[in-house]
Amino acid sequence: MKLAVGKKQLPTANYQLNNQTMPRVFKATEIEKEEKEVKRDYLDRHMPHIICPDEVKRGEKFAIKVIMGEEYTHPDEHEHFISVIQLWNRETLLAEARYTAGVYGNPSHPEIDFYITAPEVSMNLSAMAVCTKHGLWQSEDKAVKVI
Amino acid sequence: MKLAVGKKQLPTANYQLNNQTMPRVFKATEIEKEEKEVKRDYLDRHMPHIICPDEVKRGEKFAIKVIMGEEYTHPDEHEHFISVIQLWNRETLLAEARYTAGVYGNPSHPEIDFYITAPEVSMNLSAMAVCTKHGLWQSEDKAVKVI
Amino acid sequence: MKLAVGKKQLPTANYQLNNQTMPRVFKATEIEKEEKEVKRDYLDRHMPHIICPDEVKRGEKFAIKVIMGEEYTHPDEHEHFISVIQLWNRETLLAEARYTAGVYGNPSHPEIDFYITAPEVSMNLSAMAVCTKHGLWQSEDKAVKVI
Amino acid sequence: MKLAVGKKQLPTANYQLNNQTMPRVFKATEIEKEEKEVKRDYLDRHMPHIICPDEVKRGEKFAIKVIMGEEYTHPDEHEHFISVIQLWNRETLLAEARYTAGVYGNPSHPEIDFYITAPEVSMNLSAMAVCTKHGLWQSEDKAVKVI
Repeated sequence: MKLAVGKKQLPTANYQLNNQTMPRVFKATEIEKEEKEVKRDYLDRHMPHIICPDEVKRGEKFAIKVIMGEEYTHPDEHEHFISVIQLWNRETLLAEARYTAGVYGNPSHPEIDFYITAPEVSMNLSAMAVCTKHGLWQSEDKAVKVI
Repeated sequence: MKLAVGKKQLPTANYQLNNQTMPRVFKATEIEKEEKEVKRDYLDRHMPHIICPDEVKRGEKFAIKVIMGEEYTHPDEHEHFISVIQLWNRETLLAEARYTAGVYGNPSHPEIDFYITAPEVSMNLSAMAVCTKHGLWQSEDKAVKVI
Repeated sequence: MKLAVGKKQLPTANYQLNNQTMPRVFKATEIEKEEKEVKRDYLDRHMPHIICPDEVKRGEKFAIKVIMGEEYTHPDEHEHFISVIQLWNRETLLAEARYTAGVYGNPSHPEIDFYITAPEVSMNLSAMAVCTKHGLWQSEDKAVKVI
Repeated sequence: MKLAVGKKQLPTANYQLNNQTMPRVFKATEIEKEEKEVKRDYLDRHMPHIICPDEVKRGEKFAIKVIMGEEYTHPDEHEHFISVIQLWNRETLLAEARYTAGVYGNPSHPEIDFYITAPEVSMNLSAMAVCTKHGLWQSEDKAVKVI
């Protein structure tokens, strides 16, 4: 099936401009190297990262940290803050956190630890985050092997 | 900036297979005609639609209906239901609804009416929905002119 | 102010001061008549109301409107707005809506229509709402007979 | 059962039957000692607890753990799980987490670490949790002095 994003079949740049739906999802894997240099602060502060073990035992409880940004912090103002952080396993939304403005610190790296119990099969985790001003962002995938 | 999805620059199908991040967003505008025929029921029942006036007066309160599917209804079972319906204006998440399983009807067209007050400038609305089994779906945009 | 739950019977002021947990829940049924007069605008604008049929047919889809306030509108400012509206059936949270500041109108009556399918047994619905400044509010119950 | 808020003072059983709104909020501070013995497992597994420092420095980021139960774990089944965990400071909902069924472990102690930056003034934190079967539960308050 060819539903997915990244459709190399798209005929023209115009198509893209005209048919660009909102909100776009900014994905870690689809941002090119040159863009990463130029827009480094903008991209960095909006990108969620997943920090957790590479391997967990079936049925074991473990922590999954989601943290925004590596170098650059994000504002936490009424008109501009990270309002939602989601944790996905493949196509399944496992859990999400929602914030009121002014809670995580202005500026700061929004951060949360979810605790989950390792399922039967290995996972492919990703995080998504909503910035009230700059839309929807998606982390790189984090493979977690269940042993 | 070339951050957006639909990057015709993607070199190969392999790249796509290897780097496909999850969750993908299924967008109304990026599903091709042939796929729409073949996967008609699957696509239809997961696709949110926005129903509201094309024009509203500044400062006027009006209803925005989001409804899933046109022909095909969606299950509402513990392991498979629509858990979230979101309303976006461009890059801004305006409001969202979350459901417990078994509320909207099995099967049914999940449906909700948000009431908002028309802002100063015209809007470009879209809806997103989360299926607990089949991920993230995005409606076509709905332009609403503010007069 | 004596808004809190069943308070006038509490033995001493100390008990109240020491044991008062936050957030208190302000309930329509537990606010006394005199208080309703004095704090009329404050109470009215924070109180959710459920509007729906008294009787519905089993398996029938119907709309449940939740609307805040009768006479007085609520602000919709970054520091002060209604951020959550929940719909409960007895002890079960059926669905909830979350808002970004500035969406429903400043000031306005926040309002939403949930669509649910009538279950097997009669319902006792209530709504709860979160004001970012004034806490948690609970509507009167609304009995809905399933026939 | 006498779990509900400040109930034994209420004048008549009729009042209670007629005016009892749902959902009741089960509060740690309002459950009497005898009930705690009799309903120990039921109460324990539904009660959120806040674990964090008693003192924090203004502007310092710190973790606030919310964990459900001390001795008894809670199920994590489709029809019965903890769907929401909220963190409040007095009347303000700071943040909340929402779960899909089957994520935190069946049975387990649902657990989450929020990271917040200490504000200017001391806090009085509490947690609330929603059980899909047994309603709304509220922790004891946790005073956090800001120095």
